[in-house]
Amino acid sequence: MGKKAVVLSSGGVDSTTAMAIALQEGYEIYSLSFRYGQRHVVELESARRVAEVMGAKKHMVMDVDLGKIGGSALTDYINVPKGRDEAEIRQEIPVTYVPARNTIFLSYALAWAEVLGASDIFIGVNTMDYSGYPDCRPEYIKSFEDMANLAIKAAVEGKMQIHIRAPLLRMTKAEIVRKGVELGIDYRLTHSCYDPSPEGKACGQCDACLLRKKGFREAGIPDPAVTF
Amino acid sequence: MGKKAVVLSSGGVDSTTAMAIALQEGYEIYSLSFRYGQRHVVELESARRVAEVMGAKKHMVMDVDLGKIGGSALTDYINVPKGRDEAEIRQEIPVTYVPARNTIFLSYALAWAEVLGASDIFIGVNTMDYSGYPDCRPEYIKSFEDMANLAIKAAVEGKMQIHIRAPLLRMTKAEIVRKGVELGIDYRLTHSCYDPSPEGKACGQCDACLLRKKGFREAGIPDPAVTF
Repeated sequence: MGKKAVVLSSGGVDSTTAMAIALQEGYEIYSLSFRYGQRHVVELESARRVAEVMGAKKHMVMDVDLGKIGGSALTDYINVPKGRDEAEIRQEIPVTYVPARNTIFLSYALAWAEVLGASDIFIGVNTMDYSGYPDCRPEYIKSFEDMANLAIKAAVEGKMQIHIRAPLLRMTKAEIVRKGVELGIDYRLTHSCYDPSPEGKACGQCDACLLRKKGFREAGIPDPAVTF
Repeated sequence: MGKKAVVLSSGGVDSTTAMAIALQEGYEIYSLSFRYGQRHVVELESARRVAEVMGAKKHMVMDVDLGKIGGSALTDYINVPKGRDEAEIRQEIPVTYVPARNTIFLSYALAWAEVLGASDIFIGVNTMDYSGYPDCRPEYIKSFEDMANLAIKAAVEGKMQIHIRAPLLRMTKAEIVRKGVELGIDYRLTHSCYDPSPEGKACGQCDACLLRKKGFREAGIPDPAVTF
């Protein structure tokens, strides 16, 4: 039986690249996405297609009502910022921050990993996110891993050790894009925009769109999904 | 404005006592319960009544589909063990263990705490649970707290520090019952059974019922909710 990994998938560039890296390392993929009250539910369709095309063993979507808790432009009726330059994006934790989102997502991944007997959980956080969201930083990832190994029966009983794998952590968006292309990812499958049109068209101006644009530009690769 | 606490509430003896302790310490209570696919959904009605009677500022029920993930007698069609003695209950992690349950619950509590500006999260884990569930142990609680303070914006920006409060951690069930009675809790409001009848009657034989019985007996206090 092959080794298994749970991969958190948003259907975006980063998590899709993380999934490709897990595949390359020989893991059987269990893709996990969340319907969490985000404005950009179109990402769930991307995540489903990514899982299918990349041959995930299973794709699961959990319903997580973060909108009920509130506190974010991604789930509340706060305006998503548009047209910011990189210095502005980097300067503070943006209003698109969702309280404890990665902690909640990783907790579900941990539960599923224990049930599956999967020792590895892949998450596509990276250095660009680093600047903004606290739950994308290396010290956070390490701390979650430590906690995870005290939290679950299989780890406490010595049957498995959980590894939170963040292979993109120290990569720029351009390096991620280059890596993904090298691994044969079709980025047409992916979606990044925080504030798409009702038809799913990317806005081209939110932080996620701007970082994506910049990544492809710096990688010297045209974005095959570009619609803006 | 008063200080706020998020209290994880199952409507049972332990979490209700933890809530009473938070109240006594002067916190405004935000009660948080979960519909997680448990067989014993009657506990949600207890949690609602507890929150109401104890004057919680708000009571929130989150839907968390742990049944989809599986791996537990509390959410799957595995038999809940009955009639075990204390040595048997203590001897291993029981099949009623739910993978990563407290991690998922505490993660939601953390998100809500940040949005509310509540620095304290109360959880009713205790030494009796200690024996069984890894995510009730002191080293786990401490580790979650460390992780939490790296996870959320408010903590990373130095605006608040999260404390995971487990005031029952080193108390026996009898001590918990005595404490609760001293604080004026009406334990008729509470529910403990893992496997109640369709009418909500406790089975009297599952681990939760047996620990409850023993606690009241050793405290020398009759259980006002006893129906078995």
